[in-house]
Amino acid sequence: MKVLVTGGAGYIGSHTCVELIQAGFEPVVVDNLCNSSEEALRRVEAITGVAVPFHQVDIRDADALGDVFRHYDIAAVIHFAGLKAVGESVAQPLRYYQNNVAGTLTLCEVMESFGVRQLIFSSSATVYGDPASVPIREDFATGATNPYGASKLMVEDMLRDLCQAPDSQWKVSLLRYFNPIGAHKSGTIGEDPAGIPNNLLPYVAQVAVGRLPQLQVFGDDYATADGTGVRDYIHVVDLARGHLAALNKLKQEDTDAGCYTYNLGTGRGSSVLEIVRAFAEASGKEIPYKIVPRRPGDIAECYADPTYAEQELGWKTELDLKRMVEDTWRWQSQNPNGYKS
Amino acid sequence: MKVLVTGGAGYIGSHTCVELIQAGFEPVVVDNLCNSSEEALRRVEAITGVAVPFHQVDIRDADALGDVFRHYDIAAVIHFAGLKAVGESVAQPLRYYQNNVAGTLTLCEVMESFGVRQLIFSSSATVYGDPASVPIREDFATGATNPYGASKLMVEDMLRDLCQAPDSQWKVSLLRYFNPIGAHKSGTIGEDPAGIPNNLLPYVAQVAVGRLPQLQVFGDDYATADGTGVRDYIHVVDLARGHLAALNKLKQEDTDAGCYTYNLGTGRGSSVLEIVRAFAEASGKEIPYKIVPRRPGDIAECYADPTYAEQELGWKTELDLKRMVEDTWRWQSQNPNGYKS
Repeated sequence: MKVLVTGGAGYIGSHTCVELIQAGFEPVVVDNLCNSSEEALRRVEAITGVAVPFHQVDIRDADALGDVFRHYDIAAVIHFAGLKAVGESVAQPLRYYQNNVAGTLTLCEVMESFGVRQLIFSSSATVYGDPASVPIREDFATGATNPYGASKLMVEDMLRDLCQAPDSQWKVSLLRYFNPIGAHKSGTIGEDPAGIPNNLLPYVAQVAVGRLPQLQVFGDDYATADGTGVRDYIHVVDLARGHLAALNKLKQEDTDAGCYTYNLGTGRGSSVLEIVRAFAEASGKEIPYKIVPRRPGDIAECYADPTYAEQELGWKTELDLKRMVEDTWRWQSQNPNGYKS
Repeated sequence: MKVLVTGGAGYIGSHTCVELIQAGFEPVVVDNLCNSSEEALRRVEAITGVAVPFHQVDIRDADALGDVFRHYDIAAVIHFAGLKAVGESVAQPLRYYQNNVAGTLTLCEVMESFGVRQLIFSSSATVYGDPASVPIREDFATGATNPYGASKLMVEDMLRDLCQAPDSQWKVSLLRYFNPIGAHKSGTIGEDPAGIPNNLLPYVAQVAVGRLPQLQVFGDDYATADGTGVRDYIHVVDLARGHLAALNKLKQEDTDAGCYTYNLGTGRGSSVLEIVRAFAEASGKEIPYKIVPRRPGDIAECYADPTYAEQELGWKTELDLKRMVEDTWRWQSQNPNGYKS
């Protein structure tokens, strides 16, 4: 069964390709490589022994996407392609909406024209905005606090409408990711952000490896145990397996057409300082850090109630925080400059 | 001053072209003619004595739009182009989101690339969903109840983000229309929907002229004076002049970059049965009607508080309901089959 993976050369995409192959699926990757490297796919081949067909295609290019659908007998799509930096989205909203929203619309139109109507979409816990309480269930209120988050919410709304149209045959899973970290245990694929990392883990890892001098901790006066922000970190391999579980569920004959929403998280929150300590231990490196003021828009606490995914998909996370930081460190220390090493 | 008018061959677009010309502006029209007629622009010329440059361009076609910007020295854009039938939007959500949302993104990207950053956008009172009270102020909560409404809200959100980006030079007016009816006093341009009309007035007019046998009134058990739904009907010429007022405001030197939201309505609600009676009187025709169940999603009452537009734009409506139905009837009786007559 061939599965189109958009953004498949990226961080979560490449780890998902590994899991797909190991479960007997045949991923086909399209990626515009604007924030990823074809090298990741060569390493997926080294891990799995399977070469992944790759096409450098931008999902906004309907003709090029159509060529891919004509060439392969695609049964379902896992749609990772998108821009993901909050700060950049505030500065360049048109670019974010074009890539994330218009790009997804073009993908769906091409899918529809080829009769492919099974889609797994990369959403984000950011759609919960500042949640009323934790842990967060899928039926909590949603709201965006920046154009990146708004783009995810808009796509969710559009896909829900697509499934609710009369006689719709679409089956869509909206996967709301919490905070993916970690890397494949081989240390050969991992997160390789362009420029200065926006997320905590690659930043900490680059401090540990000497690429960056010091971590900035944004606020230590939140209403949390140690005052720093609490997030639900999930191992990228667990997350990749969540996609596999969602795909297996969608393709079951007895899964009705419709739109399904799942949190993918561990259900456990960790503070910034916990992460720093765990990473220092795993790497044997000191992580110098400085407390600086809160960032606007950051919230105190965010972690999932992962019950629904466990019930419906038979999936839950297996890899703990120690494993997450160890795997991150293995990737970072083996590849101090990412795929450009 | 040249103003690009997207959807300028449509109902509100053509009336706005007349007002623009009479105020000394030079409209340039792009329209894909999917629900409009070039004949409307020939009639705009007959009314004003000025031929409007016209290009059959779909706003999703960035190259063709770029050619128009290259050819004319466009100073501002009034953006009417979009699909507008609620029921159709439920059945064809992708098509609606592509035209209304992705189309607007493409328009904005082309504008940005030509340094044109003054935009007036056709929004709708539908963004208020089922309002907590009437009259409705611009600061009321918003919410969509169908893909058409969602597409308007998404574009509003995107344009607001575009204006809030650091150092943004965009000036945007979001005009939330209540229920436009009426026609130019000449009776030569008016509303000419394809197929069975979705809105009350063209439906009533087509019953009066004998094209349709009978009006269906959706519900007479609302909590309103006569039990039928109450809306804020606004003469299309008043609405067109609202665009002129918004344009004059945007182009003032002392109007800061930013996003401005205005209700365009009369502030007065009329029930379905009031409209039917007024139309029967104006046309001298009997309007047979039948009470049928409510339509899902319809609300009881919706009318504007138009204070903000009057304060900020110096604009208010001048043409009353009698004039609206008389002008509708003049258009419909002179053009029983619309522009195909």
